[in-house]
Amino acid sequence: MSKLNRPTLERLMLYYHSVSTLGEEHPTSISSGQLAQLMDMDATQVRKDFAAVGLRGCPRVGFVTNEIKEKIRDMLGFDRVQKAVVVGAGRLGGALASYKEFRKYGLNIVALFDKDPTKVGLTVGHHVVQPMDRLDTFIRHQNVQLGIITVPADATQQVANALVAAGVKGIWNFSPASPTLPPELAYRHEHLSVGLAALSYRLKEAELAKPQDDPSSTQEQSGMATKTD
Amino acid sequence: MSKLNRPTLERLMLYYHSVSTLGEEHPTSISSGQLAQLMDMDATQVRKDFAAVGLRGCPRVGFVTNEIKEKIRDMLGFDRVQKAVVVGAGRLGGALASYKEFRKYGLNIVALFDKDPTKVGLTVGHHVVQPMDRLDTFIRHQNVQLGIITVPADATQQVANALVAAGVKGIWNFSPASPTLPPELAYRHEHLSVGLAALSYRLKEAELAKPQDDPSSTQEQSGMATKTD
Repeated sequence: MSKLNRPTLERLMLYYHSVSTLGEEHPTSISSGQLAQLMDMDATQVRKDFAAVGLRGCPRVGFVTNEIKEKIRDMLGFDRVQKAVVVGAGRLGGALASYKEFRKYGLNIVALFDKDPTKVGLTVGHHVVQPMDRLDTFIRHQNVQLGIITVPADATQQVANALVAAGVKGIWNFSPASPTLPPELAYRHEHLSVGLAALSYRLKEAELAKPQDDPSSTQEQSGMATKTD
Repeated sequence: MSKLNRPTLERLMLYYHSVSTLGEEHPTSISSGQLAQLMDMDATQVRKDFAAVGLRGCPRVGFVTNEIKEKIRDMLGFDRVQKAVVVGAGRLGGALASYKEFRKYGLNIVALFDKDPTKVGLTVGHHVVQPMDRLDTFIRHQNVQLGIITVPADATQQVANALVAAGVKGIWNFSPASPTLPPELAYRHEHLSVGLAALSYRLKEAELAKPQDDPSSTQEQSGMATKTD
């Protein structure tokens, strides 16, 4: 068991994002109620999460926004800069390598690798694509901690093996395949299709909820005309 | 409240993915225990989720894999083809527009739009980039249901307004900004940084858990040397 579970981490990240993009009406502080309203969630949950990371609010003032950001940065490790390499210089690899938002969270993508000789040497997202036979030396010399995988499914295990052998401490996998990895490795699989599934479901719900000739019977048949929140 | 909440939807999607990529050792059926083991989760949860979508297993046989896929496809709406447009022909927009995996889930990306005249007319991910002044007519004529936003933060609200005005039923937002939208719209914000936060936290945990001069005191100080699951 972890001190902070995944849903809590995700909420902390969303608080951080919300507080970072607050308008001028909340220059220095915000109440848990205001933040809950902005994020369409429950104020009790906000206070509970803030207490878990050691944040205390003041009556009539609420929480100091800079303090919220600092505590969450510190807790999630954004204050430590992490070097990462991307393997797979396709469109997604290029998109991630040039995604500026990551720098806010301490992620420094330092190189892009690909096994395709026609891609090696090209500049993609400010990085010159390097050949796979340089991966191991690069990771060791540069002390790279994180490998980001954006290769097709059939190459995923091989790339994961190469990253692990070179000594990365974590893998962020954007490929559709799930590689076998040492259990001590920090690992996250980004399933873009999971988001799509949630949307498909809501679109289907919305369609079934539309008034028709006899809306009540449609709702009964579908049994799920209500909305997700 | 929804019949299927977000964590359940996400698990269903992961079952679907796991069952779709099963090896030859599970040609036609799989037990909840085997599936739970593959996915590193609890078998009770698997059975509970399967019961929620109306899947029944048989003793000694388990669940028929094709039935699992069909039920989940049907429940999540993958059996319905949804037309989508991508607005923002940058790297991420191009990556999404050419991501073949989405077709398995009924998503058909039919066009790519951008306001930048230097991008209009270019071919990105098999689509010729179209100008924004064609967006409204295109969505209406083609009956597009979903808009995918991959523009920078400062353009997000404007693009969302244009998509809503043209009549999309859902928005899948990959920009870092959160636009204001009509409540009846199906909406999902993909925060790539949330995944990064979870990874950063695990990397930090792993580092703090490393044996040092006095590992027990390090663990006590950090208070979070255990791993997430």
